[in-house]
Order: sequence, then structure tokens, then C-alpha cells
Amino acid sequence: MALYRELVEKTKKEPLCVSYDLFIDQKDPGHFIFIEEWPDREALRIHCNTEHFKRLVPMINKYQRKDGTVMLMDSFE
Amino acid sequence: MALYRELVEKTKKEPLCVSYDLFIDQKDPGHFIFIEEWPDREALRIHCNTEHFKRLVPMINKYQRKDGTVMLMDSFE
Repeated sequence: MALYRELVEKTKKEPLCVSYDLFIDQKDPGHFIFIEEWPDREALRIHCNTEHFKRLVPMINKYQRKDGTVMLMDSFE
Repeated sequence: MALYRELVEKTKKEPLCVSYDLFIDQKDPGHFIFIEEWPDREALRIHCNTEHFKRLVPMINKYQRKDGTVMLMDSFE
């Protein structure tokens, strides 16, 4: 959990981060959902190249039951 | 789309609505995702009993390819 907490804290401080929040599925406490908002793909790419992302995500992934899924969305409005 | 727009506009005006946003899956423009935040289950229940919800959701559902899925989540923090 501490790994997630550090990732969230440091990501929220990234200049291009609009929002970055972590949620837990009420029906499955092992199912974590990030809901993130970035101005564009470049900002997301920069995020994925930060020191904290490259250090923490591999450590977090060691605990995964299965691979995560990523869904890129556009705002309806 | 107008049905969705009306549902979003009226829901955002509900006193207990923290946030209510609609997104479209970049890989599947027919896949709509609502990301909603309510203070508790009671607020969500009240939302589901509003005039606009009970009028618009059945109309929207006529266009569904398949049943929607609902995931209730808690904030990690």
C-alpha cells in the first residue's frame, strides 16, 4: 500500500497532472483502479518516464494477480 | 447524444452530486463510461429516483448494444 501511496503523492505533484486518483473495487479489495486525467498523450508519456513511475510501478507489479488493463477515454463534452 | 447531455446536465445540478462525468472509450466510440462520485449509497439511491434519471435512462438504454456494468469503488485514501 505504501508503494501506491508514494506513487499517488508524487504523481499528483507532477506539473502536467490534472488529476490522479486511486480507487478500490468494493466487490474485490484486490482490484485497484487508477482514474487519471492528463492534458494529452505527451503528458502521459512524460509521467511514464518519471523517476517515481519507473521505480515504483515494477515494484507494485510484483504483487499483481494478473496484468492491468488501460482504457484511454475522451471527455463526452 | 442529447439524452446523455441532458442526463449529465441535470445530474450535476443535484445537491448531493460530488461529480458526474461521461467519457468515451478511445478504442470504441460506442462505449460510454460514467465516472460518478456520491457521498454515500443513499445519495446514489436518491439520484436513481430523480425524474430525469427515471425518464432518460430507459430512453438511453434502448440504444444499448449490451447491458452496462456498474462498479462501486472506494477511494484508496
